[in-house]
Amino acid sequence: MMKYRFPDKVSVNRTSLIREVADRGKTIPGFISLALGSPAPECVPIELLRSCAAQVLEEDPMSVLQYGPLEGDVWLRDWVMKWMKERKGCAPEGNRVLMLTGSGKGLALIPRTLCQEGDEVYCDDITYPNAVNCMKFAGCRTVAIETDNEGMIPSSLEKAVQSGRGKWIYLIPNFQNPTGKTMSLQRRKEIYEVAVRNSLIIYEDDPYGDIRFTGEDIPTFKSFDQEGVVIYAGSFSKTLSAGLRVGYLYGSQELIGKIAAVKHADGQDPIYSQKIVSKALQQIDFDAHIKSLREVYARKCDLMARILEESCSGKCRILKPEGGMFLWIEIPKNVDIDVLCDAAIERGVGIVKSAAFAVEDDRTGHGIRLNFSAPSEENIRKGSQILGTVIAEYC
Amino acid sequence: MMKYRFPDKVSVNRTSLIREVADRGKTIPGFISLALGSPAPECVPIELLRSCAAQVLEEDPMSVLQYGPLEGDVWLRDWVMKWMKERKGCAPEGNRVLMLTGSGKGLALIPRTLCQEGDEVYCDDITYPNAVNCMKFAGCRTVAIETDNEGMIPSSLEKAVQSGRGKWIYLIPNFQNPTGKTMSLQRRKEIYEVAVRNSLIIYEDDPYGDIRFTGEDIPTFKSFDQEGVVIYAGSFSKTLSAGLRVGYLYGSQELIGKIAAVKHADGQDPIYSQKIVSKALQQIDFDAHIKSLREVYARKCDLMARILEESCSGKCRILKPEGGMFLWIEIPKNVDIDVLCDAAIERGVGIVKSAAFAVEDDRTGHGIRLNFSAPSEENIRKGSQILGTVIAEYC
Repeated sequence: MMKYRFPDKVSVNRTSLIREVADRGKTIPGFISLALGSPAPECVPIELLRSCAAQVLEEDPMSVLQYGPLEGDVWLRDWVMKWMKERKGCAPEGNRVLMLTGSGKGLALIPRTLCQEGDEVYCDDITYPNAVNCMKFAGCRTVAIETDNEGMIPSSLEKAVQSGRGKWIYLIPNFQNPTGKTMSLQRRKEIYEVAVRNSLIIYEDDPYGDIRFTGEDIPTFKSFDQEGVVIYAGSFSKTLSAGLRVGYLYGSQELIGKIAAVKHADGQDPIYSQKIVSKALQQIDFDAHIKSLREVYARKCDLMARILEESCSGKCRILKPEGGMFLWIEIPKNVDIDVLCDAAIERGVGIVKSAAFAVEDDRTGHGIRLNFSAPSEENIRKGSQILGTVIAEYC
Repeated sequence: MMKYRFPDKVSVNRTSLIREVADRGKTIPGFISLALGSPAPECVPIELLRSCAAQVLEEDPMSVLQYGPLEGDVWLRDWVMKWMKERKGCAPEGNRVLMLTGSGKGLALIPRTLCQEGDEVYCDDITYPNAVNCMKFAGCRTVAIETDNEGMIPSSLEKAVQSGRGKWIYLIPNFQNPTGKTMSLQRRKEIYEVAVRNSLIIYEDDPYGDIRFTGEDIPTFKSFDQEGVVIYAGSFSKTLSAGLRVGYLYGSQELIGKIAAVKHADGQDPIYSQKIVSKALQQIDFDAHIKSLREVYARKCDLMARILEESCSGKCRILKPEGGMFLWIEIPKNVDIDVLCDAAIERGVGIVKSAAFAVEDDRTGHGIRLNFSAPSEENIRKGSQILGTVIAEYC
């Protein structure tokens, strides 16, 4: 057999600590996973999507069975343009939509379009691992920027960009994964100023933005983006169906045009999923659907937070988010987090430690991520009780 | 507005000459396109796919509406393993399947996984433009290798690889796009030897392999690949539905594993399309379906070739393929091919000149590609007659 010569950039793939937890869980009877990041299954409008899927293939089968439009379903792109205007405060003039098989696909397209090997990307020190892997696979240098309660600290970013090698900033401003933190408007504007001053693109990853269950919406970066530096990534994964894989990028004509050119070279995506979503949006009261979805998420989050606060609020800091799917717990520095997580898993509760989300190996943080969307309320109750006991014991 | 700083590698995007023909056609009444590369619409089993789509969502909706397996539908991956063994002569041991949204998605994954900027890729001097664009966008240097009637010439390849910067070879061994040429077994073995001696990966792109309507199947590169250097790309786009976007890569555990790791970072693909294909394969007599599809393609190809041979065989060389979707015409060197193509388009027939497929700008070839799968027989008849007149006039 030939010895393959892979470039260094693809050798950086760390084993996924999240997957490791899932794998261990399989060997433990009655295992309750609070480890994954799936949306609440009870909120998927199965009947509606089933009916829409049938209608699409009934009405115009060849529109989805033959090659179709490269940038995605036209009706859906128009819908997104309106949504971005009416709900996200973005002026449509000069902007454009590119449909993707999940907004996550944008994570690979951006470095491929913007970066040469060795270019720098700035991200929160603890952030979404797939984003970091995409940057690394593209040969980018990922620079972890210090964060506080609101996420990325502008002065730390300012310092890092002095290298002159920076191309873009990766952010999840609403209910960040994994910490659940949300950036204030003031903070967003400060980060935006640094970006503009240094000709950096901001990738505003907002998969959870529609699932706010307390507090007030904060304007998106894109809404005050006069300079065309922001690319907004949105998704139907959390609101309609994750499996259909329908997401999008929204940004300036020129930027989206260039990204689309890179994307088109490897061919179009399945248009069927997009047309199912289009059809669903035409038939559902989407606002009412999101409202009911928020209620489910709020109830699940409250339940988890309440149990944990009762059992261990004196021992650690519980960060209850205003939306999204994750609750974060800061563990005291003197506690061995590996031992704590192992103990939880041994007792049948899957949780993920902050090291799984660390951009740099020597800054692994000291927290755990809990998912409250996927498990049932019964499992949230059981799982949080067990976890509360473990934390009380180890902290 | 900010001035964007795109790297040179994404500035190489040439305007697509194929798209240009399509755009011009829109302004011409009764325009007959022989320019695109869509499969025969009459061969898409609409009723079957409609019924399968409904069954999948009926039986286990959450398996396609929630996140699913990253490498694709398990049943379909098993089916491909068997297919590769029984129909493509590949021993399953040590090999693995990765499902993709169309085999074209592999075109971007390979350079991202194998190459650093500046690495070389070897391809036919006239080949599939999307493949070339994917290589360039990844920062690879595309090297056009001289071809003859069987495609890439081994001695020319041997010479090029002396640079020591080569990583892989891109080939469409069966019914190449655009020339329709097929490589003999002898030629395949010679190219394979060069690859092994120089530690190069061979990307065997085989979207048309199942549509052979004359002659005998020639063993795939993958079937004699003892060294694990071949990645085979297969597709259901030409046999079941192009719009569903279901294709795959097949190769050694290690190679596919690394490609999968790169792919996984930007998330999974829609599993629904794959499950529809799985269901269809469980319910259709796939061999009989392919047989009837081959008959349609053979009839369309014969019709086009016969008309053109009658009107202009003395003027130019008509390369009738043994399969696939394209017929190639070599135009005499003294004829201005741009003028000829313009004349055909003006008279209402869309054709694509070889420059659209040229890897290097100064080696644009001297031929035209005609598609016989997408147009109706009536349009093939009319279009070929008009084109025959144009060729007789200009050659």
